[in-house]
Amino acid sequence: MDLKSLIRDVPNFPQEGILFRDMSPLLRNPEALDFVSKNLVQKVDLSKVDCFAGIESRGFILAAHLAATHKKGFLPIRKAGKLPPPTKRISYALEYGQAEIELPLGQGNIMIVDDVLATGGTLQAAIDLSYLAGYKVESVAVLVNLTFLNKMKFKNEEVFSLVQY
Amino acid sequence: MDLKSLIRDVPNFPQEGILFRDMSPLLRNPEALDFVSKNLVQKVDLSKVDCFAGIESRGFILAAHLAATHKKGFLPIRKAGKLPPPTKRISYALEYGQAEIELPLGQGNIMIVDDVLATGGTLQAAIDLSYLAGYKVESVAVLVNLTFLNKMKFKNEEVFSLVQY
Repeated sequence: MDLKSLIRDVPNFPQEGILFRDMSPLLRNPEALDFVSKNLVQKVDLSKVDCFAGIESRGFILAAHLAATHKKGFLPIRKAGKLPPPTKRISYALEYGQAEIELPLGQGNIMIVDDVLATGGTLQAAIDLSYLAGYKVESVAVLVNLTFLNKMKFKNEEVFSLVQY
Repeated sequence: MDLKSLIRDVPNFPQEGILFRDMSPLLRNPEALDFVSKNLVQKVDLSKVDCFAGIESRGFILAAHLAATHKKGFLPIRKAGKLPPPTKRISYALEYGQAEIELPLGQGNIMIVDDVLATGGTLQAAIDLSYLAGYKVESVAVLVNLTFLNKMKFKNEEVFSLVQY
């Protein structure tokens, strides 16, 4: 399936000089969503995955769709301050400033999912946080990898993607 | 299925005097998620639904799970400023101050979904916004209705829920 034909390029959004990859057409297409949920796990041993963990907020969409497709649980990786205790938090650097994400304490094997991999800062923080909160990261996947933005190496995981720019 | 047994009561979160209904245990349970997605639509003619529209960010979880379960599309009702044009925005009153939500312009029949119905301000704004942006609201459902917080009447829709407090 040609997923790129369902991703719309929006120049100068959210600011001048940025080319935004808009997945709205893909998300509105049931066959494309089904294709994504089935193929994002093509290298994963699903018997080892208890939950799909989505990074707030667009990562929630894919992780929940995957959870339904493969009959697994869902785990929210949230911006700090929104989850009741007990949780773990982690801070990480953004291009300008800092961000914080948070997870409920727990256990089990998770697959971390997000829509777009850009510089990789959030995804690496999500991986680190998952271990701190008690989980084992079985796999990591994104729908779109903006490969020109991330040269960083992920410590212990490969990041699988279905679309690359 | 006893969904309330999978919703944890957290006193004094996010602030003193508030009893937070934490759905994390339910979200981690694949059978409960499947039950929710199948039963939230029990009064809906699915042949008339093109997309499940989720209200950012926890509404994304249920709407995406429903989209996978029933092979429909997904539509994000987002906080203002995150969606590329063309969109419609609407402002609405919160207990303190104002909030804004936004939708891509479009068409088709949608079912609006959120996790918790509290005072109903956000949900009513989402319904109004949907019509402004070109959609027809076929149905509205939430997982949990905090009935003591909303006496307001919804204009043209009934709000279906699976759990009431």
